[in-house]
Amino acid sequence: MGPARDMRIPRARCVWDIARVSFEEMWADLLPIGRSASTGGYFRAPFASAERELVAWYAHEAAARGLDVTYDGQGNAIAWWRPEGSAGAGVLIGSHLDSVDNGGAFDGPLGVVSSFAALDALRDRGVVPNKPIGVAMFVEEEGSRFGLACLGSRLATGQLSAEAAASLRDRDGVWLLDAMSTAGLEPDLGPSSLLEGVEAYVELHVEQGRDLVNRDRAIAVASNSWAHGRWRFDFAGEPNHAGATRMDDRRDPMLTYAMTALAANKQARLSGARATFGRLEVYPNVTNAIPEEVRAWLDARGPDAAMVDQLVAAVERQARERAERDGTTVTVTAESGSPTVDFDVPLGARLAAVLDDAPQIPTGAGHDAGILQLAGIPSAMLFVRNPSGISHSPAEYAEMADCLAGVEALATVLTELAA
Amino acid sequence: MGPARDMRIPRARCVWDIARVSFEEMWADLLPIGRSASTGGYFRAPFASAERELVAWYAHEAAARGLDVTYDGQGNAIAWWRPEGSAGAGVLIGSHLDSVDNGGAFDGPLGVVSSFAALDALRDRGVVPNKPIGVAMFVEEEGSRFGLACLGSRLATGQLSAEAAASLRDRDGVWLLDAMSTAGLEPDLGPSSLLEGVEAYVELHVEQGRDLVNRDRAIAVASNSWAHGRWRFDFAGEPNHAGATRMDDRRDPMLTYAMTALAANKQARLSGARATFGRLEVYPNVTNAIPEEVRAWLDARGPDAAMVDQLVAAVERQARERAERDGTTVTVTAESGSPTVDFDVPLGARLAAVLDDAPQIPTGAGHDAGILQLAGIPSAMLFVRNPSGISHSPAEYAEMADCLAGVEALATVLTELAA
Repeated sequence: MGPARDMRIPRARCVWDIARVSFEEMWADLLPIGRSASTGGYFRAPFASAERELVAWYAHEAAARGLDVTYDGQGNAIAWWRPEGSAGAGVLIGSHLDSVDNGGAFDGPLGVVSSFAALDALRDRGVVPNKPIGVAMFVEEEGSRFGLACLGSRLATGQLSAEAAASLRDRDGVWLLDAMSTAGLEPDLGPSSLLEGVEAYVELHVEQGRDLVNRDRAIAVASNSWAHGRWRFDFAGEPNHAGATRMDDRRDPMLTYAMTALAANKQARLSGARATFGRLEVYPNVTNAIPEEVRAWLDARGPDAAMVDQLVAAVERQARERAERDGTTVTVTAESGSPTVDFDVPLGARLAAVLDDAPQIPTGAGHDAGILQLAGIPSAMLFVRNPSGISHSPAEYAEMADCLAGVEALATVLTELAA
Repeated sequence: MGPARDMRIPRARCVWDIARVSFEEMWADLLPIGRSASTGGYFRAPFASAERELVAWYAHEAAARGLDVTYDGQGNAIAWWRPEGSAGAGVLIGSHLDSVDNGGAFDGPLGVVSSFAALDALRDRGVVPNKPIGVAMFVEEEGSRFGLACLGSRLATGQLSAEAAASLRDRDGVWLLDAMSTAGLEPDLGPSSLLEGVEAYVELHVEQGRDLVNRDRAIAVASNSWAHGRWRFDFAGEPNHAGATRMDDRRDPMLTYAMTALAANKQARLSGARATFGRLEVYPNVTNAIPEEVRAWLDARGPDAAMVDQLVAAVERQARERAERDGTTVTVTAESGSPTVDFDVPLGARLAAVLDDAPQIPTGAGHDAGILQLAGIPSAMLFVRNPSGISHSPAEYAEMADCLAGVEALATVLTELAA
């Protein structure tokens, strides 16, 4: 990200100085962690050094505020503020700290930093909530290391079984349990009690699109999260010499893959869904050999699960037809899937109302808030305007003024829900 | 490879027992080196452990035969047999020891093992050559590590400048010079004197095709080697979120690549040339991000250089047209190129004549013999039948009887050329 481009904050939306200073300090502390000097992108893979530094930072910020941090065996945590006299179920805010490889600074950490800053704003205003307020940190939200997005919240809520999780390995063959142990955790993959006593979750996140730019608004409330999933396509052929093998004698899985990638794009355009092949592994991946195998991951999303399933089925059908011609084979494995999640309607309406009739918009991305909603915890999301709409990239950005508007929005929401 | 399937050798083609035993022992010694237990393929990258073990084996076999080994600063070597009374220019046989990643056992080592066994056959027959005979070992023939095929012979003959070679790095960023030093060499990238006094080179190689199967012959002589080269295609786009980015807002380089891969295949089929995209790198290569860059290597070959150039130009043109539509960019870099090489015609005719009118066939693969031919050393090749035609793969194979026929052919050739 570049330097903050506009530090002037419209008076009407100005958060108190203490929250602004607090936000800026925390943000400056996080900026260097896991940042690549060559690309400017972030490499904050879960259970590895940069992300662990962020987790230590989280514990430090919680301690500095006198919050009571509860960890679970899955790598998630909540830093609780339980003011004297507060009782009953609590309100949870927060997000995640991990990034995709070469991702941006905002996706995840913005929600956690804004949450701490919102607590600072409440305290500075003398607001004493009558319910506990927690700042959550969920682990491996991106699925960048173990291939399954929202891993921490799925485990905590029992939406991923301990058995299935125990079979997960990263690209280097490291088992999830070993990665957790190496990071100093005492892993327990079963559901956790971390979220007991949470009556609502509000996750703040940088927008991943330009809806707010088009609407000329800084903050939105999420309406729903699209259905999405990941499918692994294994294209198998016959390895052979690139120079000596006649074109007619080939069984080249790269061709089957290439046609499939184009077909996925076309199907998504035709159906109004989204499809991406962003990850690929080629064996043996040498210039002068026809590959033996091409392994490719399809990320598919759409407003509803049926549309996504139809899209994937159509892509798979076209892949098989091409494989027939290429003399190759295709095996498709569903690695993860999430239905459309409608965030809690009364909660969303209440938030939009207290936030100057904030627009309610859908999101094509999956989030922990969607997992908690599916687990029966009324959940909502706040989006902060992103000038380019770009995310999962070093170019991901939000203006400082909009970030502070996000802090103010969170403080307003907490006052509404917990005070 | 499987076990030798037919150990009976037709009486008329039987090599002397000493050569057969020698071949089989050497072959058995080499089989485990650099072999993957999971795929059965070979990983013998130059200047790394498995290939260095092969080089030590080569020195051991040379010493056991009392040969005089000369090394050059580029990693190549010749083991000379200079019988008393032999004088003048020498005849060279041999091949290389490195393999592509997950390659076969035969491509390279078959030529070196057969060369030692042919010397054993001559000696056992009491043949005393009146010219020196050398067994050559050229390094990094496959270009699997530094991306440039026939690296050792190009350097030795001055067809690759020391300056250009000094800029070569492997995929881990290791410089060629550092790799050589780590392997214990005292590198000198300038042309070497290794090949001075060589009047002819005959390289024996497993066939990379099924020509000999179709002809029902065990041995062929090479007529020419196709023009070939490697081109790197860099497709650049805009990284973004796979779920949140509308299809219309994307600049996805994977699509441009996919169309280019299909176009290359089609162009090759139309023109009678060969084109392969077998190596690919995707950045950042994560499931839920549209890639920022796709880097792909095109291997293109054809009977003449003009046809290859036309093929690459046509592929590049189609890539650019598609890039225009995708909002991406394409940069094409020629990494290596070799013209068509006609092997020495009188030498080839002489070899075919003494080998029962062996057929003369072209090869789509590049070889060190082609580099030596271009350097003015009359060169020829012998091919040994390959039942499946498959090479650069664990399935690469030759029957033991055909391998021994190769040894006998080499012995016959040496008797013709050096005795």
